[in-house]
Amino acid sequence: MTKENVQGAGEEEQQAQSKKALKKQQKEAEKAAKKAEKQAKLAAEQQETDEDDFAKDRYGICPMVQSQQKLDRALVRVQDLTPEKAEQQIWVRARIHTSRAKGKQCFLVLRHQQFTVQALLAVGERASKQMVKFAANLTKESIIDVEAVVKKVEQKIESCSQQDVELHVERIFVISQSEARLPLQLEDAVRPEGEGDEEGRATVNQDTRLDNRVIDLRTTTSQAIFRLQSGVCQLFRDTLINKGFVEIQTPKIISGTAISNNAFKINRPVLTTQMFLLVFRAEDSNTHRHLTEFVGLDIEMAFNYHYHEVIDSITDTMVQIFKGLRDRFPTEIQTVNKQYPSEPFKFLEPTLRLEYKEAVAMLKAAGVEMGDEEDLSTPNEKLLGRLVKEKYDTDFYVLDKYPLAVRPFYTMPDPNNPKYSNSYDMFMRGEEILSGAQRIHDAQLLTERAMHHSIDLEKIKAYIDSFRYGAPPHAGGGIGLERVTMLYLGLHNVRQTSMFPRDPKRLTP
Amino acid sequence: MTKENVQGAGEEEQQAQSKKALKKQQKEAEKAAKKAEKQAKLAAEQQETDEDDFAKDRYGICPMVQSQQKLDRALVRVQDLTPEKAEQQIWVRARIHTSRAKGKQCFLVLRHQQFTVQALLAVGERASKQMVKFAANLTKESIIDVEAVVKKVEQKIESCSQQDVELHVERIFVISQSEARLPLQLEDAVRPEGEGDEEGRATVNQDTRLDNRVIDLRTTTSQAIFRLQSGVCQLFRDTLINKGFVEIQTPKIISGTAISNNAFKINRPVLTTQMFLLVFRAEDSNTHRHLTEFVGLDIEMAFNYHYHEVIDSITDTMVQIFKGLRDRFPTEIQTVNKQYPSEPFKFLEPTLRLEYKEAVAMLKAAGVEMGDEEDLSTPNEKLLGRLVKEKYDTDFYVLDKYPLAVRPFYTMPDPNNPKYSNSYDMFMRGEEILSGAQRIHDAQLLTERAMHHSIDLEKIKAYIDSFRYGAPPHAGGGIGLERVTMLYLGLHNVRQTSMFPRDPKRLTP
Repeated sequence: MTKENVQGAGEEEQQAQSKKALKKQQKEAEKAAKKAEKQAKLAAEQQETDEDDFAKDRYGICPMVQSQQKLDRALVRVQDLTPEKAEQQIWVRARIHTSRAKGKQCFLVLRHQQFTVQALLAVGERASKQMVKFAANLTKESIIDVEAVVKKVEQKIESCSQQDVELHVERIFVISQSEARLPLQLEDAVRPEGEGDEEGRATVNQDTRLDNRVIDLRTTTSQAIFRLQSGVCQLFRDTLINKGFVEIQTPKIISGTAISNNAFKINRPVLTTQMFLLVFRAEDSNTHRHLTEFVGLDIEMAFNYHYHEVIDSITDTMVQIFKGLRDRFPTEIQTVNKQYPSEPFKFLEPTLRLEYKEAVAMLKAAGVEMGDEEDLSTPNEKLLGRLVKEKYDTDFYVLDKYPLAVRPFYTMPDPNNPKYSNSYDMFMRGEEILSGAQRIHDAQLLTERAMHHSIDLEKIKAYIDSFRYGAPPHAGGGIGLERVTMLYLGLHNVRQTSMFPRDPKRLTP
Repeated sequence: MTKENVQGAGEEEQQAQSKKALKKQQKEAEKAAKKAEKQAKLAAEQQETDEDDFAKDRYGICPMVQSQQKLDRALVRVQDLTPEKAEQQIWVRARIHTSRAKGKQCFLVLRHQQFTVQALLAVGERASKQMVKFAANLTKESIIDVEAVVKKVEQKIESCSQQDVELHVERIFVISQSEARLPLQLEDAVRPEGEGDEEGRATVNQDTRLDNRVIDLRTTTSQAIFRLQSGVCQLFRDTLINKGFVEIQTPKIISGTAISNNAFKINRPVLTTQMFLLVFRAEDSNTHRHLTEFVGLDIEMAFNYHYHEVIDSITDTMVQIFKGLRDRFPTEIQTVNKQYPSEPFKFLEPTLRLEYKEAVAMLKAAGVEMGDEEDLSTPNEKLLGRLVKEKYDTDFYVLDKYPLAVRPFYTMPDPNNPKYSNSYDMFMRGEEILSGAQRIHDAQLLTERAMHHSIDLEKIKAYIDSFRYGAPPHAGGGIGLERVTMLYLGLHNVRQTSMFPRDPKRLTP
């Protein structure tokens, strides 16, 4: 048996406990004792009131779910609570999003994923005074099971996703309790910037969010972002599989020089290939768009005569992703826009392709001073994005024929002008999301170019040698997953679209 | 612009060239000079014969494809060469798999991916003596474009995948030349073990294959293996997406203790989650089934009342994968079986689930001496696989309720017997492919269990704390992708199903 994919757990177990840990354990033990005491007290109170509580079997705290029994109880999802279910008696599992007691009533908002519904407990035939009090005292974020009747409401409940119904609760049981003090409030975490400033309402800053990502990921905005990102992956792969690509896995552990993604692209025979690999980058990660670790959706494809065959394949894939997101994820886009408003993402068919020369001319016409073979700075990329949007009304375009000098050694030179190359970047809302090129497939030219770049040939021997036995002309590129999600949604920091972002200042959680 | 996902290339460029590299470069230069000389000689010979060669425009070596032109020429794939195309004049791009000259004729076998076709050049109206000689001298593995007429054949061509047609070549151009000396012969690399021993025919050993993986991946067997593996990934994800799962990406760079996959499973609210992550394992990798790096298809799922809900979800996913492979990849399975014969993979619906106790009883009945709470050794796992196959006629089953002592600290104990746990492994052909469990979702119990295992609480603080704000009961498991491919196909070494395997003795290519 393999001890599950947990590295080092075995070693951990054998480590001697440090003093610090012992102290910690004492503290934990005290905490546990306190908790037990509190629970005993609650139980005593409970018993006290039990005798005169006709509803005592209708609420309470369940023992920890340890798979004691197979309960054949259907649970309805919050998102499925619609007027069609009116007057039905159902069970729901959800978190307590908010809770408000008001005289003999208690209003809860229950949440599951991106969806919320109002629930009402009122002292009466089905609920005792004690039961309503119990519900009112439950901590936010606790997970509960409620049995309730679905009721249509006269007036739309604006604060919930399920606006046409509410739940009249008849039983309420706690499945998993939350501690009372949350490190951040979910209402604050979804508040649009600036809103509620006058009432002194808080928003949550990025570091607090990331330090408490477990809670932050529960917001409707985070839920929507990562559902949409899952959609990007799915659309990317489905489109390519339909085009006849093969998905491959490449090693992350490599020896010697790290041309990781390129060291492998050549390993496929005359054939389209796709790489879905993760890249650890040694680049400046202290910006809004760089991370130490990101997910790269990589494509390599053999072509017949011209690398534009590959550009067309990639842009078509991107267009399929944009269309798929627009058509399949309208709820998610709307949810994110509530907190972070942005214009819908625009794209053309076929995709606009500009040459680098044209871009430089556009920038120069706009007053930018730069050389023809100079790389684009980030501000210039963004300015270019605005100029292109004005002129062509698109948020997505390809910039083709980069100067050879600013690209890696394995980039195929332009056959007509040695100062340029068969390489391209793709942009969304003025930011680069893909960089790619025709790769040199000839060992001799590759050697020459590596020497020109003063690269130690010994270190890339295996890479060069792999081209000695007939390599097809090919091109490809790497798409930054987090950037595509960020820019499609019009967000402004790539940390919002990385579940556990890593940068020079952040290695946890 | 980002310099593509290539780490360290910049640093490389700035590195001073070592003496060794200089020497290397001289050698390369000499090589290039030799090559140029040879080509000049060939050109001279060519010119000499050009005058009396009526077919001189019908063959030759193309300049390196540098995207000089957009050629609007449709290329037919080898796999599409069927009798329906008889008498059509078409273009094909393929590799020279084998070549044999015979008097005024030259027979080539052309290969693309898993498919091969016979091609014939004969001195006559459409081909000169020089042209046939040119074709006969082409090196194996070179990539060529041929224009040819598809001809039905009387007798099936047993040695090719396209058995009913051959190509009568009228034009032949080299797109990418291979060096003459290949590090291994593709025919040898697909020869079943033992076959041809009497004729002294070679097979290729594992290390030679892996040292020259670029060539080895071109064999029909490798092509089939990795196409099928791509299918496993696709079927896994499609099934889970249909079940409402969300695909997430988790960081590979982690600080402190490495409970990587578990550190994250808890980050999803009351909701099914899926992790598709890569795990670097610190385990014995010197065996036929362990690698230093493998691809883990990880599932985490919140359940309602019993972790068997999760087992059912996972086994159903596996069954969908098995059915999908059987139905969509018959060609690939057949191709692999030619070299590595095996019995078709058998599974039951619903999947067989045995308790650990029953397994121990079966082993004891078969003469094995072992304790009730002892872990299964690899030989015992295999023996058990045979016993289960005999008794239940299935190659896939679940072993449930492992002894608590042999599982990680975060495993939920069995509520009815403290010596056992809510944990399980899944087996294919007697080998473990998944290990999983109900995870403890209560911070207090988790703390107790960690202390019992003498784990430093300080190091797993973030992990434990993440359970303090209401965590749903959940279970999951990690599937080893390479093992699933290996065992489904009945192969015997996981290095065959890893594109660039990593183990303590291998870090390259």
